Amino acid sequence: MGVTIGRYLNDEFIGKRCLRMRKEGYLVEIRNVKGSDYYMISPLINEWWGGRQMSDMLPKLFFDHFKNTSFIAEIDGRIVGFIIGFLSQSELDAAYIHFVGVHPTYREQKIGKRLYQRFFNVVKQRNRNVVHAVTSPVNKASIAYHTKLGFDIEIGDREMDGVSVFSDYDGPTQDRVLFMKRLD
Amino acid sequence: MGVTIGRYLNDEFIGKRCLRMRKEGYLVEIRNVKGSDYYMISPLINEWWGGRQMSDMLPKLFFDHFKNTSFIAEIDGRIVGFIIGFLSQSELDAAYIHFVGVHPTYREQKIGKRLYQRFFNVVKQRNRNVVHAVTSPVNKASIAYHTKLGFDIEIGDREMDGVSVFSDYDGPTQDRVLFMKRLD
Repeated sequence: MGVTIGRYLNDEFIGKRCLRMRKEGYLVEIRNVKGSDYYMISPLINEWWGGRQMSDMLPKLFFDHFKNTSFIAEIDGRIVGFIIGFLSQSELDAAYIHFVGVHPTYREQKIGKRLYQRFFNVVKQRNRNVVHAVTSPVNKASIAYHTKLGFDIEIGDREMDGVSVFSDYDGPTQDRVLFMKRLD
Repeated sequence: MGVTIGRYLNDEFIGKRCLRMRKEGYLVEIRNVKGSDYYMISPLINEWWGGRQMSDMLPKLFFDHFKNTSFIAEIDGRIVGFIIGFLSQSELDAAYIHFVGVHPTYREQKIGKRLYQRFFNVVKQRNRNVVHAVTSPVNKASIAYHTKLGFDIEIGDREMDGVSVFSDYDGPTQDRVLFMKRLD
């Protein structure tokens, strides 16, 4: 799973606009994803993640087949965030969050929190009371963020910088931190 | 989506074993995937696809959350094929096949066909009467195979070697052929 890290892009226009919006207040709208969002979001991902090659992790199928549990955050029709998740087919009480991103300029304004909250609400309506997510141990921002949102870290086979990890979870050398949150 | 192409690996042991099995008859068992199959299949994928980097397309989440519509073919407990698919959450009459592979030595023995058939049967029980699959236009073997299995090719925006394709479907330069099959 990917959660964007806190890198600030040098985007003067958006910076100024954001400043203005902070002063004036602005409306973040959350809506379900549609297939064509893929073509907007896919090129943004590597940029939002500060140049890491992340877009391969989010092929088009997620935009075609998990629309009812995946959401876009927009300001004036411009995409500033997204959450892509689904209901587990195998674990009937569980849902899984695959990918979350917020435009670097619009971070720390609770857009991510609103996206997660929307996801939680929808999956609860579908009788899911557990949400899983997975991240990389190097993604400290993601670990801190999920912990703040009330996710527990599952106990893996070893610790790394004080965090329990599952060694080689996503293949050789691909250790992962597994999160689990119970919905009230 | 990936479907293995017809490359024969230089694997003398398996070759001999396969020859013996062809003479003697052998039992191919089809079962649901389990999470730990990921660690067996992931390293095999690039090998079965003749060195193409394919394993990133099949992260662990598919083995954790789509077990009831994903299957393994085994001979004497050895994995010789797999099909990974799911019920579309957005299209309530549809299912999607994400990845199919058969060990190069065991091809042309209807193992793939049995895997597809098992998938079709299971998704039909879940009231799905349409199956989608996607492949690359360069994967002629996959196009021929799906056509033989009764998939129709959806009409895209242009033709390539007589096959209708969707330009840039999976991102820039990533044209795709889209298949659709109605289940009886």
